[in-house]
Amino acid sequence: MVRIGSSSHGESRLRMLRVMRRGDRHDPKELSVSFRFEGDFAAAFREGRAGGLLPGEALKNIVHRAARDYGAGEIEEFGLALCERVLAQQPAITRARVEITESAWARLDVAGRAQGQAFVAGPPELKTAAVTSNGRQSSVVSGLAALSLMRTAGFAPARGEAADDGIADGLPRLLVAELSAKWTYSSADVTFRTYRQGVRALIVETFARHASRSVQHTLYAMADLVLASYQEITDVTLALQERPYRPADLFSAGVDNPDDLFVAVEEPVGVVEVTVERDS
Amino acid sequence: MVRIGSSSHGESRLRMLRVMRRGDRHDPKELSVSFRFEGDFAAAFREGRAGGLLPGEALKNIVHRAARDYGAGEIEEFGLALCERVLAQQPAITRARVEITESAWARLDVAGRAQGQAFVAGPPELKTAAVTSNGRQSSVVSGLAALSLMRTAGFAPARGEAADDGIADGLPRLLVAELSAKWTYSSADVTFRTYRQGVRALIVETFARHASRSVQHTLYAMADLVLASYQEITDVTLALQERPYRPADLFSAGVDNPDDLFVAVEEPVGVVEVTVERDS
Amino acid sequence: MVRIGSSSHGESRLRMLRVMRRGDRHDPKELSVSFRFEGDFAAAFREGRAGGLLPGEALKNIVHRAARDYGAGEIEEFGLALCERVLAQQPAITRARVEITESAWARLDVAGRAQGQAFVAGPPELKTAAVTSNGRQSSVVSGLAALSLMRTAGFAPARGEAADDGIADGLPRLLVAELSAKWTYSSADVTFRTYRQGVRALIVETFARHASRSVQHTLYAMADLVLASYQEITDVTLALQERPYRPADLFSAGVDNPDDLFVAVEEPVGVVEVTVERDS
Amino acid sequence: MVRIGSSSHGESRLRMLRVMRRGDRHDPKELSVSFRFEGDFAAAFREGRAGGLLPGEALKNIVHRAARDYGAGEIEEFGLALCERVLAQQPAITRARVEITESAWARLDVAGRAQGQAFVAGPPELKTAAVTSNGRQSSVVSGLAALSLMRTAGFAPARGEAADDGIADGLPRLLVAELSAKWTYSSADVTFRTYRQGVRALIVETFARHASRSVQHTLYAMADLVLASYQEITDVTLALQERPYRPADLFSAGVDNPDDLFVAVEEPVGVVEVTVERDS
Repeated sequence: MVRIGSSSHGESRLRMLRVMRRGDRHDPKELSVSFRFEGDFAAAFREGRAGGLLPGEALKNIVHRAARDYGAGEIEEFGLALCERVLAQQPAITRARVEITESAWARLDVAGRAQGQAFVAGPPELKTAAVTSNGRQSSVVSGLAALSLMRTAGFAPARGEAADDGIADGLPRLLVAELSAKWTYSSADVTFRTYRQGVRALIVETFARHASRSVQHTLYAMADLVLASYQEITDVTLALQERPYRPADLFSAGVDNPDDLFVAVEEPVGVVEVTVERDS
Repeated sequence: MVRIGSSSHGESRLRMLRVMRRGDRHDPKELSVSFRFEGDFAAAFREGRAGGLLPGEALKNIVHRAARDYGAGEIEEFGLALCERVLAQQPAITRARVEITESAWARLDVAGRAQGQAFVAGPPELKTAAVTSNGRQSSVVSGLAALSLMRTAGFAPARGEAADDGIADGLPRLLVAELSAKWTYSSADVTFRTYRQGVRALIVETFARHASRSVQHTLYAMADLVLASYQEITDVTLALQERPYRPADLFSAGVDNPDDLFVAVEEPVGVVEVTVERDS
Repeated sequence: MVRIGSSSHGESRLRMLRVMRRGDRHDPKELSVSFRFEGDFAAAFREGRAGGLLPGEALKNIVHRAARDYGAGEIEEFGLALCERVLAQQPAITRARVEITESAWARLDVAGRAQGQAFVAGPPELKTAAVTSNGRQSSVVSGLAALSLMRTAGFAPARGEAADDGIADGLPRLLVAELSAKWTYSSADVTFRTYRQGVRALIVETFARHASRSVQHTLYAMADLVLASYQEITDVTLALQERPYRPADLFSAGVDNPDDLFVAVEEPVGVVEVTVERDS
Repeated sequence: MVRIGSSSHGESRLRMLRVMRRGDRHDPKELSVSFRFEGDFAAAFREGRAGGLLPGEALKNIVHRAARDYGAGEIEEFGLALCERVLAQQPAITRARVEITESAWARLDVAGRAQGQAFVAGPPELKTAAVTSNGRQSSVVSGLAALSLMRTAGFAPARGEAADDGIADGLPRLLVAELSAKWTYSSADVTFRTYRQGVRALIVETFARHASRSVQHTLYAMADLVLASYQEITDVTLALQERPYRPADLFSAGVDNPDDLFVAVEEPVGVVEVTVERDS
């Protein structure tokens, strides 16, 4: 006999733009929503029964109404509302997961004056939120993704290496990387905006200032600092993907290169990931 | 206090081309390898110690030597060899995971004659293998990805709907989808090539012939058939992502459309995923 | 004073799927259409006048009706019909250009039997056609794109190099490349299908068999052969983009490498392009 | 007889990072360089002769040395130096074209203080330069690409439509688009940096403030303003690709939508392009 170990279905990439118009000052939010639903859908799989599924049109209506009500606020609140409404409408779904990403738009600056109704796309960095709910309990994980960072100095030798003894040879002179972060709240009742700003500031500050012995070393320092600063955060996951560069061989070109020219190589790509959690 | 919940590091996208030359008849294999390593790297994270990591150059040498020895064979064998060699070289790694994908190349046909040394890229479908090992036990998961399929007829009404009673109205007339599949072996000592061919044939045959009441219904039928046919396979995971099309509105264009023209829409994208396992 | 040097507008990526149903045997064609229109639109640019533009809805109707009528045939015929209909509907357009690409789908094979209603995506190679018309004269350029080819032997030394004198050292052992081709017909009244098959066969055969002294040498040989074979073709443009690989350094890995392992490097990418035309 | 109508070869995507280190304050520039060379290479095509080509290694050396000397300055100066050095080294090349793009990095801000050695990726907007030279004369075209803009109000009715008479119905409420621009200098001896800043400011200001009757209308206004402001610019080409959105159908969702929720649709994509030049 066989059994269904797990199953899910969903819709991904419902993309929309929510424009808040307060007089002459507008504010756009570009959002992308994805759903995954779980439940007892054995009859759908085994026998092809249609019951219990949420039709695409009904789902779209839920998303549009919720975007109207919550799209102007924090994506975590929007995600909580979406989970609640989906579970209310289709009882066969026992667990809903919604993932939301928000892209940045900045106000256009014309002759030093910020415009009210014209905008330019911001950096590729995304705000992310993942809300999971079974109708009684909700889990909120906030995050950021596609944060491209560069550091051109300030690296320390790894401990346990010769360089640790004062010979600072062979240190890297460049790190270019894409960082993503996720952190879980112990409650769905926090001011998400404030936490997001605070966590991002700690991550970025650590990247800029930490006497980094390695990527591992710096990621841990970031996570440690976040957990020490915010009791309402129970765990932090950080992933860093390096964009590889190597110093240009200017010797064969007949000139020296005091670490000022690097050539991009695309592969292989180094990845480090760590989850640090509160030791309860 | 905080603790490291989980951590890993690795290298991804080591891409290579292995050419087997047997006289005038050559055979290329295009491979891409990614690694993830786990172990007790707490000192690397907390204190920036370098010990226990496998330097990039050493890893590359392992991959190239293994590709020389095993690259011409099945990717599962290649993966098993890679895990073994990595664990042998760096004892601090307690768990190694390697993922390999193989892209298809076909022999060029000139005037009806297959060429020995000239090739054309095949369909985007990939063979995949993921091997995980702790040095004593290895788990092998074979798979396929990016298999784009289309069906233009043969759909059945969902049970529990009016159409089930004989009124075959509102049935879909087109399904275009990308399928991926993964299956786990109960042993690392099987003839992977034969199993792969057999599993793929069952999946494709089911897609082509099943009186599909829904995507769920067909995925389950595929998995059920695979588990019934191969005792050495313990579970099957299938994921299908629909490439959405809708019938063109030829009414407003002034002509009818007996389901013969569909317009591509990119979003949202429906996803269904199911894992079916042997009920031990 | 300033003047409009050139201008155009258009719509790109109208994607559709045309299914031909002849009894139980169906045939799908996946098509993507792009338009560029020129005309005297100075008033639209200078004063914001709307006259002379073809509304998106009207254009869509033209495309859907033409796809219904011609989508099952050759893309060149479809393009000629599209140009004609657009120019007939909007006289302000004095020159229309339509580009069409067709992706390949192959019949699924189940237990050795080709299925009538189930298909699998073919290789990434695209058929292309560009039709330009001013209402009186039409120009048809057929082509192919994204044809990925590989050759593992058969290269000759470049003339004028030491190797030309018999020392066959330093010859390449691998070429992986993406080829695109375009050819212009002297008339819009040819059997496009036959020509396409013939031109592609000549290109592919030359790739497989030519004693290539360089990419330049082989592209010229392809174009020369096409022009010699088809009087109705007035010029051929070929572009080849190399996918770079280098032999793996197995020396440092402690084994030899008789040209059987190559490592992918992504950049830089070499490009060669040539247009060969009939010398009238 | 056949003849070579045109031919070129080149290398694309030589990507590098130039870091200027002035004490504790560093400045990175991320650059990507592509080349196309023309000359009398008939013998290479017809007979496979190697003479006259610039070997990849020699080209790389030229790029790295020039990046060392000019990479910290404007990309136009870098391009002029590259053309000059390539033509000096390989006389068979009679015309060299180099295209350079520069991606933006911004200084990281930590607690309100800009960091000297840590950076975050900027918006996707690129600076572009294309320099073409035959050794005696050089043409410089500066530009920008991938500038994503949004406007949420301020559109005017097209002239010649009912709405022009005061009934402002049916006006768009949102424009999201990607803009690229190119402008040609009458001389290679200008302060490129100042012109670039000025041209970009005029384009962006026009986008934000123009009472746009249509995309055509606004692009022309941008180009007209640039040519009126800078006598040293001989022509301007602007291309705008719309990212399509449509108002969400909140009616079926049971709420109204005063233009505050838009749904992304990916296709088709509207494109408008215009070149405006000085009427000599």
